[in-house]
Amino acid sequence: MKASASVRVALIQMSCSKDIQPNLDKALQRIEEAAQKGANVVCLQELHCSHYFCQSEDDACFEFAETIPGPSTEALSAAAKKHGILLIGSLFEKRTDGLYHNTAVVFDKDGSLAGTYRKMHIPDDPCYYEKFYFTPGDADPGFKAITTSVGKIAVLVCWDQWYPEAARLAALSGARMLFYPTAIGWHIADATDVKKGQTDAWETIQRSHAIANGCFVCSVNRVGREGNLDFWGGSFVADPFGKIIGKSSHNNEEILYADCDMTRIDWTRRHWPFLRDRRVDAYGNLTRRFID
Amino acid sequence: MKASASVRVALIQMSCSKDIQPNLDKALQRIEEAAQKGANVVCLQELHCSHYFCQSEDDACFEFAETIPGPSTEALSAAAKKHGILLIGSLFEKRTDGLYHNTAVVFDKDGSLAGTYRKMHIPDDPCYYEKFYFTPGDADPGFKAITTSVGKIAVLVCWDQWYPEAARLAALSGARMLFYPTAIGWHIADATDVKKGQTDAWETIQRSHAIANGCFVCSVNRVGREGNLDFWGGSFVADPFGKIIGKSSHNNEEILYADCDMTRIDWTRRHWPFLRDRRVDAYGNLTRRFID
Repeated sequence: MKASASVRVALIQMSCSKDIQPNLDKALQRIEEAAQKGANVVCLQELHCSHYFCQSEDDACFEFAETIPGPSTEALSAAAKKHGILLIGSLFEKRTDGLYHNTAVVFDKDGSLAGTYRKMHIPDDPCYYEKFYFTPGDADPGFKAITTSVGKIAVLVCWDQWYPEAARLAALSGARMLFYPTAIGWHIADATDVKKGQTDAWETIQRSHAIANGCFVCSVNRVGREGNLDFWGGSFVADPFGKIIGKSSHNNEEILYADCDMTRIDWTRRHWPFLRDRRVDAYGNLTRRFID
Repeated sequence: MKASASVRVALIQMSCSKDIQPNLDKALQRIEEAAQKGANVVCLQELHCSHYFCQSEDDACFEFAETIPGPSTEALSAAAKKHGILLIGSLFEKRTDGLYHNTAVVFDKDGSLAGTYRKMHIPDDPCYYEKFYFTPGDADPGFKAITTSVGKIAVLVCWDQWYPEAARLAALSGARMLFYPTAIGWHIADATDVKKGQTDAWETIQRSHAIANGCFVCSVNRVGREGNLDFWGGSFVADPFGKIIGKSSHNNEEILYADCDMTRIDWTRRHWPFLRDRRVDAYGNLTRRFID
């Protein structure tokens, strides 16, 4: 498919309540609003159908999981088709009994499932006990562009954003836009300067993926207090040289729009030809844990 | 050797004239000043003994090249020993007839050569015709920490700074500080916003290496007008979460000091355990040019 020259992205930054249906209803409403405002691509935040339940290890939370296809994916598919948009959603996927993933789904404008991505890097830290819930993605290759009506894109999820390897592999497989559905927040007990350092690092590393790879990076995070976390929002879109071309607040529900001129990718890569000079002969040790 | 708990780094940001001796003399004087102010590690900028001659392809410029050992390395070795410091220099190395490198040298406080690094990623762009002069480094492994009296460090050079792979491999081989001797500037014809975008991307991607790897990043650039380039200085040190703990101006000769608390490395990596969760099983394709 021929890639579009300009893509209007909408990132839906919202707060979530405990029950699934009100969250899904809210997301569908915002998707409609974004489509009406001309969005070609709409991306929802990580686990947008529920609270970020990973703040504790609780068997009962497995009840939030859904299969693909399932109620959420059917609703998202229908919304993509209805509005004629590319729609990126996120869900707690039940693959089979006892096997669950944190999975992004991409529906094209005809409602078809263009691709899925099962989160590869899984965190496990206080308030982010994801290793309890999510089996790491096992696709081969693990990072891969998805072909869509707006060109090749890739979806990576939250903790993936700290890994240059993931962004690079997505870009090398042809992705021109990287989407990062995210759920990250400040611990309420942290000091203001610590919080600032965290959001700054989070934004910086994702902007660096845009720079290193000469592609757009679109990151969408939730807002609102849940348990001990204040989700910090700050959703943004960076252009292929890492310049932020749109950014949301840290505490309000918002739809962030960004018009992405896809011709900037080749322009930027010609002027800053990093892909040309990679020393692929010398990168073999990147598959090692540590070189000791 | 046991790593030091605190390391005082000095980055010498200077302008250069055409002749080698005045540049070397200036560098030696600044090294002395830095040592007197308590620096344990002093790092000079890329090709500090000459103008940045790569603005044109000129056979005559090969005359700037030196062997190792040679006059520059002998002077640097003596300075390291005299002041009892770790000293990082850069030179245009003649390896043999017709084989030249852009090489960083690391002298320990006893004057011994702790290690060398031949620049791996070589640019070739208008005003930066480095592929004409410099054979890419061919060490195996290409990126490797150097063991010194202040612990393991790595030196990467200028264009390397745009490659997350280089920083990662250096960190995986144990480097706790990454040094980037650099010569990068604004083309005098560029617009102000273009210039701002360039310095911003340059700083961002290097800060991201600190974040991704949980290590210190020390970048030292030259200042001053040479030909069509205004070297933009802006030398800085970033801590293991990418926070800038010291930064120089864009147009003045300066010695930037930064006290690096090396215990922050483990502290940061415990709180943001990115190395723990790398998907080394899924990174094999990083050795490919493009996945098409």
